[in-house]
Amino acid sequence: MQKMSVRTRVLTGAVTLAAVGAGTFGALSASAAPQSDQARPAADVRKSETVTSTHLSVAAATKAAQAALAAAEKENQRVTVAVVDRNGNTLVTLRGDGAGPQSYESAERKAFTAVSWNAPTSELVKRLAQTPNLKDIPGTLFLGGGAPVASQGAPIAGIGVAGAPSGDLDEKFAQAGVAALGK
Amino acid sequence: MQKMSVRTRVLTGAVTLAAVGAGTFGALSASAAPQSDQARPAADVRKSETVTSTHLSVAAATKAAQAALAAAEKENQRVTVAVVDRNGNTLVTLRGDGAGPQSYESAERKAFTAVSWNAPTSELVKRLAQTPNLKDIPGTLFLGGGAPVASQGAPIAGIGVAGAPSGDLDEKFAQAGVAALGK
Amino acid sequence: MQKMSVRTRVLTGAVTLAAVGAGTFGALSASAAPQSDQARPAADVRKSETVTSTHLSVAAATKAAQAALAAAEKENQRVTVAVVDRNGNTLVTLRGDGAGPQSYESAERKAFTAVSWNAPTSELVKRLAQTPNLKDIPGTLFLGGGAPVASQGAPIAGIGVAGAPSGDLDEKFAQAGVAALGK
Amino acid sequence: MQKMSVRTRVLTGAVTLAAVGAGTFGALSASAAPQSDQARPAADVRKSETVTSTHLSVAAATKAAQAALAAAEKENQRVTVAVVDRNGNTLVTLRGDGAGPQSYESAERKAFTAVSWNAPTSELVKRLAQTPNLKDIPGTLFLGGGAPVASQGAPIAGIGVAGAPSGDLDEKFAQAGVAALGK
Amino acid sequence: MQKMSVRTRVLTGAVTLAAVGAGTFGALSASAAPQSDQARPAADVRKSETVTSTHLSVAAATKAAQAALAAAEKENQRVTVAVVDRNGNTLVTLRGDGAGPQSYESAERKAFTAVSWNAPTSELVKRLAQTPNLKDIPGTLFLGGGAPVASQGAPIAGIGVAGAPSGDLDEKFAQAGVAALGK
Amino acid sequence: MQKMSVRTRVLTGAVTLAAVGAGTFGALSASAAPQSDQARPAADVRKSETVTSTHLSVAAATKAAQAALAAAEKENQRVTVAVVDRNGNTLVTLRGDGAGPQSYESAERKAFTAVSWNAPTSELVKRLAQTPNLKDIPGTLFLGGGAPVASQGAPIAGIGVAGAPSGDLDEKFAQAGVAALGK
Amino acid sequence: MQKMSVRTRVLTGAVTLAAVGAGTFGALSASAAPQSDQARPAADVRKSETVTSTHLSVAAATKAAQAALAAAEKENQRVTVAVVDRNGNTLVTLRGDGAGPQSYESAERKAFTAVSWNAPTSELVKRLAQTPNLKDIPGTLFLGGGAPVASQGAPIAGIGVAGAPSGDLDEKFAQAGVAALGK
Amino acid sequence: MQKMSVRTRVLTGAVTLAAVGAGTFGALSASAAPQSDQARPAADVRKSETVTSTHLSVAAATKAAQAALAAAEKENQRVTVAVVDRNGNTLVTLRGDGAGPQSYESAERKAFTAVSWNAPTSELVKRLAQTPNLKDIPGTLFLGGGAPVASQGAPIAGIGVAGAPSGDLDEKFAQAGVAALGK
Repeated sequence: MQKMSVRTRVLTGAVTLAAVGAGTFGALSASAAPQSDQARPAADVRKSETVTSTHLSVAAATKAAQAALAAAEKENQRVTVAVVDRNGNTLVTLRGDGAGPQSYESAERKAFTAVSWNAPTSELVKRLAQTPNLKDIPGTLFLGGGAPVASQGAPIAGIGVAGAPSGDLDEKFAQAGVAALGK
Repeated sequence: MQKMSVRTRVLTGAVTLAAVGAGTFGALSASAAPQSDQARPAADVRKSETVTSTHLSVAAATKAAQAALAAAEKENQRVTVAVVDRNGNTLVTLRGDGAGPQSYESAERKAFTAVSWNAPTSELVKRLAQTPNLKDIPGTLFLGGGAPVASQGAPIAGIGVAGAPSGDLDEKFAQAGVAALGK
Repeated sequence: MQKMSVRTRVLTGAVTLAAVGAGTFGALSASAAPQSDQARPAADVRKSETVTSTHLSVAAATKAAQAALAAAEKENQRVTVAVVDRNGNTLVTLRGDGAGPQSYESAERKAFTAVSWNAPTSELVKRLAQTPNLKDIPGTLFLGGGAPVASQGAPIAGIGVAGAPSGDLDEKFAQAGVAALGK
Repeated sequence: MQKMSVRTRVLTGAVTLAAVGAGTFGALSASAAPQSDQARPAADVRKSETVTSTHLSVAAATKAAQAALAAAEKENQRVTVAVVDRNGNTLVTLRGDGAGPQSYESAERKAFTAVSWNAPTSELVKRLAQTPNLKDIPGTLFLGGGAPVASQGAPIAGIGVAGAPSGDLDEKFAQAGVAALGK
Repeated sequence: MQKMSVRTRVLTGAVTLAAVGAGTFGALSASAAPQSDQARPAADVRKSETVTSTHLSVAAATKAAQAALAAAEKENQRVTVAVVDRNGNTLVTLRGDGAGPQSYESAERKAFTAVSWNAPTSELVKRLAQTPNLKDIPGTLFLGGGAPVASQGAPIAGIGVAGAPSGDLDEKFAQAGVAALGK
Repeated sequence: MQKMSVRTRVLTGAVTLAAVGAGTFGALSASAAPQSDQARPAADVRKSETVTSTHLSVAAATKAAQAALAAAEKENQRVTVAVVDRNGNTLVTLRGDGAGPQSYESAERKAFTAVSWNAPTSELVKRLAQTPNLKDIPGTLFLGGGAPVASQGAPIAGIGVAGAPSGDLDEKFAQAGVAALGK
Repeated sequence: MQKMSVRTRVLTGAVTLAAVGAGTFGALSASAAPQSDQARPAADVRKSETVTSTHLSVAAATKAAQAALAAAEKENQRVTVAVVDRNGNTLVTLRGDGAGPQSYESAERKAFTAVSWNAPTSELVKRLAQTPNLKDIPGTLFLGGGAPVASQGAPIAGIGVAGAPSGDLDEKFAQAGVAALGK
Repeated sequence: MQKMSVRTRVLTGAVTLAAVGAGTFGALSASAAPQSDQARPAADVRKSETVTSTHLSVAAATKAAQAALAAAEKENQRVTVAVVDRNGNTLVTLRGDGAGPQSYESAERKAFTAVSWNAPTSELVKRLAQTPNLKDIPGTLFLGGGAPVASQGAPIAGIGVAGAPSGDLDEKFAQAGVAALGK
C-alpha cells in the first residue's frame, strides 16, 4: 500500500480541526464525570489510514443561514432555513418567525438533497423525468429550495429553505445564503 | 491497487479529500441521469470558512473490523462488529456467522458511544455511578464492547463488538480491531 | 365557564404576530404554485376563541444560542446548542465545530426538558429521587445543561447545551445564552 | 433591522396568555414533586425579543371538532376529526364510533396540511398538477377533508376529517367544524 | 374447545354496533371514489367465529375528557387529557391551553398504561418495586395520572392526564373524568 | 342526538365478551405482581355510554390464516399471511417457510387496507385512478392480496397475503382464507 | 482460515430448503408481473461461501404458539403469543381474545430476548443484577415470559407470552409452547 | 399435509451450522454475566419441525462487498456497498470514502429489493410499469444498483451499490461484487 503513505504526506501539510483540538479532545466527555482517571489512552492510527472531510464552520454556516433568512424577510416571506453537511448532519437550523409547521423538516431535506448530488434541488427535480424513483431515497425532498455549497468544486454542505409560496422563491433565498459565503 | 495511487497523486495537491475528486464530485449524482447539462456550478467557499474532520478510510475501517471479527472467531465467539465515525455515521458493519439478532444494533451503539466520549465503553459504564442518566442519550449503549480510535489524541472512530458472553470479551475483540490499525 | 370569559377579556387586548402579517399569511403556501385562484377565504374566528403563546423571536433565539456557543468556545469546549419553544418545537440549532455526535439530540432534549418544567435540568435531575419515572417521558433528558427562558415568569423557551465534560459546564454555557437575552 | 423594531412595537401592546397564568406557570412541573425549593428563577426576556402565535382555545377547538363530527353523524358517516394548530401540534382528536383504522392519522395529516398552506386540502390537491412533490413533505396528506381556520386572515389551525366515502364529504364536515367557530 | 362454544353462546345474544350500521358500513370507503360498482360483497362470518370488545362511545369519552380538563382548570392547572380504548387506540385528546409540550404524549401513555392493567397508574407504580422492568414495555408510562374505566369489572378505557405539578394532582383530574361517566 | 339513543337501545341488549370474563379481567395485570391489594375498583360506566366492535376470534383468525397459507403452499408459493382487525391491530401473522423478507409488512398492510375500506385491495387499486393520493395514507398498501372479512355486511377484519409472483395470486390465497370462515 | 474450511466441510453435506424449492424460488417475485422474460439468471455461489441457519417451520411455530395460547386459556388468562426466529424475525403471532394492548409488542420482545441469549427471560432478568444495561439493547424486554427453542443445543427460536398477571405465569405458558415441539 | 413430510425427509439429511457450534451456542449470552448456573437447558426440537435458510458467510459477503467497492473506485466513483440476506438482515456495509450521505440507506434498500424478488433492481424497475405500487412496499428502493445472489437458483442475498452518477453504473459495480463469488 505504497500509495496510501503518499496520501499521508499530503495530510501532513493539512491542519485539521482534530489536530488543533487534540489536547482538548482527549478530555472530551459530554456531561460525564471528570475523566482525570482515564488511564488507557485510545490507540493512535497512522495518517495513511485516514481521510478527511471538509465542513462549513458553525460560524460560516450560521452566517449563511442568517443571510438566507434575511433575504426572505426582506420579501416578507416566513421561512425556515437549514444547513446540512456532506455527512448528512444538520449544522444549523433557524425557524423563522411565523414559518409554517411543514417548513422545518422540509428545509432540512432540501439541504440534504442538494448536498447529496451537489446541485440545486430545482435542477434535481428535472432528473425525475428520467429517474422518477430517485425521490424515494430516504431523507430527500425534490422541491426547489435547496442549494449546494462547494469547496474547490466538491460539495461540502447544502442550504435548504422552505415556507415561501414557491420553490423558486425558497431557492432564491437559499442562494442568498450561499452567496454570503466567500465574502 | 494501481488506481488508488492515481487518486493519491491528486491528493498531493490537495488540502482536503474533497479537493481530490472535484471534477468527479461535480458530476456526482447517485443513480441519477447524466448531468452534463449541469450549467450552474455551486459557489465556492473560502478556506477560512471551513473546518475538516478526520475519518478512518474505508480500507482501514474494514481492516480493523476484520481483525476484531477474527479475534472473536479465534475464541469461537459469534459476534457482530461495527465501525462508526466521529460524525456518528456507520462506516463498516460485519455481521458474523451465527451472531445473535441483538448484536447488530448493539455493536453500532457501542461504537457510537465510544467515539462520542473517546473512551472504552467499559470505562464509560463506570461514569454512570455518578451520572446515571448519561445512558438515556439517544444512540448510546453503556455496555462493554466499544473502543475508541484516535488520531493525535482526538477521537475519529469507534469500534463496537457485540455477541460474546460478556462485555469484557466483546471489548477485547474491539481492542484487537483497534490494534490492527497503525501497523 | 366564568374563567374562560375572564381569559377572553385579557386576550381581547392582545395584538398577535398573526395580525401583523395578515396580508402575507393569506398568501402563504410554502413551495406551492401561486395561489391567486384561491377564492374561498378561510373562515375567521372570534378573538374570544383564541389564546396566544409567546415565543422567542428567531433573532433573539439565535443571539442566545450564539452566546452559549461563544461561552463554550471560550473554555475550549466543543458543544451543540439548541433552543426549543414552549410548544416543543426547535427554533435554532448550532452544532459547534468538533462537537460529538451525541450532542445534537442531547441539546434538543435538554432544552425541551427545561421549558417543559420551567427549571434548569440540573434542578430537575433532583426530582428523580422522588419521581424516578419522570425521565421516561418521551422527548426529555434529565442531565444538566438545559436552562429555561421565561417571560413574566412563564416559560417560553429552553436552551440546551451538550458536549462539555460535565453537565455543570453545559449548563453554565446554557445560562450564558439565557443571560444574553434581556440586554 | 427596521422591520423587527416595528414588530416589537406591536408586540409591546400584547398581553399574552402566559401573563395570565404567570404565577401558576412558575410552579408548573407536570407530575414532579412540589418545587417549593426552586430558588433560581428563570431569567426574564424583554418583550422586544418575543413574538406570539395565536391558537384556538381548547374550548373552541373542541366545539369545532364536535360540530364536524355531528355533521358527519347526521349523514350516517363514521369519521375521525382532528384539530391541529399553526405550530403543527394536535389540539383535539375525536375518533368517531366505528370510524376506520386509517382515519385517525389521516385526519391529523389533513389538518396539518390545511394549516400549513392556509387552504382547504381539496384546493391543495390541485397544486400537485404543477408541483407534484409537495406531497412528499413529511406530515402532509393531499386528500380532501382538511380546512383551515384563520384569525384576521392568518392561519391559526386546521381541521381534518377522514373516514367518509369521499374527500368531498370529509371536507364538507370539516367546513362545518370551521363554521361553528365565530358564532 | 369446550370453552369456546360457551363463549359462542354468550355472543349469540349480542347485538353489535356493526349490526346497526351494516348498510352504511358496506358503503364505507374513507375519501375514496364512490363505490357503486363494488360488486363482490365481502364474505360473512358466523357469529361463533367472532368476539366483541366494548368501547366508550366518542360522546362519553369526550364528556369524560372535558370533565377531567375542567377539574384541572378549576385548580388553575394546565394539562392535556387523553382517552385510550382497550385496543390501545386513542379515542379523544384535549390539549389544554398552556399545557407543557411534554404533556400530550404523557397523557396518552398514562391512559394506555391504566387500561392495560385495569388499575390507576399510581397503583401500578408500586408494582415496579417487585417487577421494575414492567416500565420498559413499549407505550407505557409509570407515573400517576392514569385511571381505568371499566364496564362490568372489565377495563374498556383509560383516562390519562399530564401537566400538573404532581402525578397525584394529575390523577385526581383523571378520576374526575371517570366520575363523570355513569351519571 | 336522536341517533345516539337509538344505538344505545340496541347496545342495551348486548352481552359483550368483557362481561364473560369480568372476574378475570379485574385481576388482569400482565406480568405484574399479584394484585390482591388492589382495593380501589375502577368505576363502572353505563351501557348507554359504550359501543362495541366485533372481531374475529383468535381461533377463527388462525383458521383463516392457515387456510390462506395452505392455498399458497398447494401452488408452491411462499407467502406470509396476516389478519388485522377493524381497529387496525394485527391478530395473527404466519410467515410461510421461504417467504421473502418484503412479505411480512406487506401482508399486514394489505390486510389493513382491505379492512379500512371493506373491499379487496385489487378493487381499491382501481380507485387510485380517481384519487391517487389515497395510497399516501399511513399503514396502507395498494397492491392486490388483501381481502375483507365482514359480519352482517360490516367490515371486521382484513386478510393480507404477500409473496406470490402476482397480486392476483396473493389475493386468491387471501380469499381462500376468507372462504374458510363461515363453514 | 482453517476454521472456515472445517465449517465448509460440514456445510457441504447440507441439503437446504433452498435446494428443495430451487425451481420455485427462481420464479419468486411477490406481487410483481410475470417474469418469464427474466433472462439474466442470478449468479450462483459455491457452497463453501455459504452458511445456513435453522428455523422452526411455520407449521411447528404455529403448533407451539397454539399450545401456549391453549395453556393460557385453560387458566382463563388472556395473552398474546409470539414466535421469533434466530434472525430476529417474527414467524407467528396470535393475539388472544381479550389480551391487553400492551401484550402484543411485549410478547415479541420477550421472544426476541429469549432467542438472543438462548435462555428463559426469567433467567435473563437475574443477569441484570450484574449487567443492568443489558436491558437497554434495542428490541429486548427483560420480563419473565420468554422461552428459547433449541436444535441440538443451539437457539433457533424464542416463544414469548404476555398478558397474564405475572411473568411466571406468562413463562409457564411459553414453556407449554416449547413442550409442544418435539412430540 | 403430504408435502410437508416430503420436505421433512429432505431436511433430515441436513447438517446445519447450528450443529457445528452447538456447544458454543449453548453458552452464548452476548455481554451478559457468566452463565454457568444456567441449569435448565432449552428444549430440543425434532428436525422435522425445522427448515433452514442459506446465507452468504460473512467472509464471502465481505469479499463481494470489497469487490464491488473496488470496481467503483477503479472508475473513480464514490459509493456505499451493502449486502443483505434473504431474511432481510444486513450482513455487511462498506461506506466508501467520500460517498454521499444518501448512499448508505440507498445501498441497503437496493440490496433488500434485489434479494426479495431475486432479480436485479434495474429489471424490477420495469415491473413498475404494470404494478406501480410495488415501490410502496416498506424497505424497498426501485433504482438500478441492486443485484441478487443465488444458491442453486434460489435467492440468498442481495448486493446494493449507491452513489455513482447512474443506477446503471451502480449496478455494474454490484454485479462485480456478485462475480467475485464462486471464484
